[in-house]
Amino acid sequence: MTSENETTPSQTQLLDQVIADLETGRQEALAQTLLTTHPADVASLLESLPPEQRSELWEVVPVAQESEVLSFLHDEARTTIVDEMDQGELVAAAGSMAPEDLAEFIDELPEDLTNHLLLALDADHRKRLDNVLNYEEGSAGRLMSTDVISVRKDVTIAVVLRWLRRHETLPPHTDSLMVIDDAGEGLYLGKLDVADLLISNPDIMVEQVMQPEAVTVRADLSEHEVANLFERRDLISVAVLDDAGKLLGRITIDDIVDVIREESDRTLLRSAGLNEEEDMYAPVLPSARRRGLWLGINLITVFAAAWVIGRFEAALSQIVALAVLMPIVASMGGIAGSQTLTLTIRGLALNQIASANVRWLTIKELLVGGVNGAVWALVVALITYFWFGEPGIAIIIGAAMVLNLLAAALAGIAIPLLLNRWGMDPALSGAVVLTTITDIIGFLSFLGLATLFLL
Amino acid sequence: MTSENETTPSQTQLLDQVIADLETGRQEALAQTLLTTHPADVASLLESLPPEQRSELWEVVPVAQESEVLSFLHDEARTTIVDEMDQGELVAAAGSMAPEDLAEFIDELPEDLTNHLLLALDADHRKRLDNVLNYEEGSAGRLMSTDVISVRKDVTIAVVLRWLRRHETLPPHTDSLMVIDDAGEGLYLGKLDVADLLISNPDIMVEQVMQPEAVTVRADLSEHEVANLFERRDLISVAVLDDAGKLLGRITIDDIVDVIREESDRTLLRSAGLNEEEDMYAPVLPSARRRGLWLGINLITVFAAAWVIGRFEAALSQIVALAVLMPIVASMGGIAGSQTLTLTIRGLALNQIASANVRWLTIKELLVGGVNGAVWALVVALITYFWFGEPGIAIIIGAAMVLNLLAAALAGIAIPLLLNRWGMDPALSGAVVLTTITDIIGFLSFLGLATLFLL
Repeated sequence: MTSENETTPSQTQLLDQVIADLETGRQEALAQTLLTTHPADVASLLESLPPEQRSELWEVVPVAQESEVLSFLHDEARTTIVDEMDQGELVAAAGSMAPEDLAEFIDELPEDLTNHLLLALDADHRKRLDNVLNYEEGSAGRLMSTDVISVRKDVTIAVVLRWLRRHETLPPHTDSLMVIDDAGEGLYLGKLDVADLLISNPDIMVEQVMQPEAVTVRADLSEHEVANLFERRDLISVAVLDDAGKLLGRITIDDIVDVIREESDRTLLRSAGLNEEEDMYAPVLPSARRRGLWLGINLITVFAAAWVIGRFEAALSQIVALAVLMPIVASMGGIAGSQTLTLTIRGLALNQIASANVRWLTIKELLVGGVNGAVWALVVALITYFWFGEPGIAIIIGAAMVLNLLAAALAGIAIPLLLNRWGMDPALSGAVVLTTITDIIGFLSFLGLATLFLL
Repeated sequence: MTSENETTPSQTQLLDQVIADLETGRQEALAQTLLTTHPADVASLLESLPPEQRSELWEVVPVAQESEVLSFLHDEARTTIVDEMDQGELVAAAGSMAPEDLAEFIDELPEDLTNHLLLALDADHRKRLDNVLNYEEGSAGRLMSTDVISVRKDVTIAVVLRWLRRHETLPPHTDSLMVIDDAGEGLYLGKLDVADLLISNPDIMVEQVMQPEAVTVRADLSEHEVANLFERRDLISVAVLDDAGKLLGRITIDDIVDVIREESDRTLLRSAGLNEEEDMYAPVLPSARRRGLWLGINLITVFAAAWVIGRFEAALSQIVALAVLMPIVASMGGIAGSQTLTLTIRGLALNQIASANVRWLTIKELLVGGVNGAVWALVVALITYFWFGEPGIAIIIGAAMVLNLLAAALAGIAIPLLLNRWGMDPALSGAVVLTTITDIIGFLSFLGLATLFLL
């Protein structure tokens, strides 16, 4: 029996095998594979396939698994699959989703389908869904489950144990029960750890074991802050309260792990101007359109840099070495600036930057920029001298580099702070703004100094 | 009592206040603040301070909290603090760390201190530490705790409950007990969920409730794969086994949350060529040296691009518009390429790229590159025509852009796949290699076509 202990299967081997089966049309083999594959992994397989094979594989997914697989899919990949389902299938799948998952699912559906779905849900399901939809996306309220076990404080542990034994199952990840007041208003009083339930004398009262000062969150707290709290306090679950202190539900760590992973995914994708739900196998035209937007923004900034270069046509036409060397100054500034920018964005995400320590950070980054500016300016100046044999150009490229690295340090701190203050995500547009500045200052300082001193 | 429910405190407000207290020397106020601050938050405060204030605040940290605060600090920040502690303090702090934390802590200490510490530990502590140090950093064995509750399968639930009640506490995050064989070799048989323990009839046997097919991991599995497994299976804890199936310990979700956060942190920092433990307030010279390395690598690549430009001095000296426009072709290729690169790196991290679907991905990305190349080439060509009035240059810049965006798509897929195959982290060096290629192909195609057709 122990031999069935699962070690992690290789997902890429599984993927290769599924593709081979799809290509040779081995339906039974596929069905067999999917039966023993976790819905999360089925979702990942679907996302790894181009549109046609994706729908072929979806056909093989057992109906009973459909709703779970759908809730593991990213929005964009899910849309491609939902588009091919008929309404009966959709209603069936939606009917067996937890309200939190359903809320997210419904947000992404076309409106006529949404209405259809809402009408098809039974009253209880619909009420629970409405409850979740009341809270804004990205808030604690949206993450919470209302499936909570709560107890009174004036009963004994033995009573609680007896009562639990009457349950068929407990809500997933129940590491603690919630203690609420007996007046029936559901005011939250504290939590009762399952561990304490197990080790306590059955005759003592809940009140004596419960933790009245347990951490809780309000329903409108952002999921980012909830995740921070879980991380800092090593929580498994946390109670969600309304403003009056009434217990609304609980958030569990598995949803928080998803929040953390999604945040990091978003940062990565956004920094390249990609949609956060980007589907590896999205159709070509929508993909091209979404990415083209980012290219268009970049085009504006790079034309701005080109315009700056254009101001120095006289210098460029007289000294062709300037054209050869100018990308060096701009590029080194961009690299140094992105280091400062990354550090600042991370400091902001960790809440480690407050008004009182910005000054020191700026001084430190200016010094780092100055030191590296000086060192690499010397190297670049020497190479330039040996390449072109012109001491004037060598001195000027060195000076321009020092200037640009200092500007890069300042920009690397100022840009994310400003974007953050204006409520914009520094990870999204920080890098574009930064390289615009380092390009322009790079070209301006190098070509400008050359015009002043060499012409 | 309910009014003490904690909502998240604002970390940046706390930081501002601590800095103000440090500047005015209010020691008692600081001590008071630290008493009510979680060790994880104290660690974050320390990391937010420049060296001098950091040691001032460290002086105020209560001795009893020191070991916990140290285990929450990032390596580099920790080193700055350890440097100022005397050996007695260090030994005291180390003595109260859990073996997993101590192992990580010791890895970073200078060797003479390590030996000193090891000698000062008591025999039991040292044995547990050796146990952890047996496993490689980054493996499941390093993450696991040996603090596990195991039971036999041939006893009743009532016996287990009685036995648990004799414990003072349970290991943190105990969501299940481990069932091992009675022969005393400790072979793992399955897990017994605490939830099942609570809802089952006390008279039935453990064997009837336990889950023999629960997921387990081997001690040498990488922490990345362990984290993937936790995420896909929504686990709270997992048993760690040796090759013979013997139970070694368990890994809990709180450590996995740290692994996930560190991975995302590493990707972010590395993509800018920063050290993964980079301390916001590291001293200037070491910071400059570490970052300078990255600037030096970039300098090589940008000189390679400059060398390519240098091959076309004739064209540049005759048509100055080429110098003005050439950064546009290079930059657009870099942006488009980094989109493909990011998508590929993410696909690799999610195990969604296998040999069988690379071809489709390449075709799709080439099509996206082709569409965007064509669209933006037209825009750039039109702007160029209106700016310089030269149809030849307009046509050539458009053609160069299409070529560079196609090359960018290919490079964006090939670079991370090759780096990955060679065992290198694509997030670390992928972007530098990519922009080198898009710069060179951008300059080469634009200036090359101009030389062929316009001179």
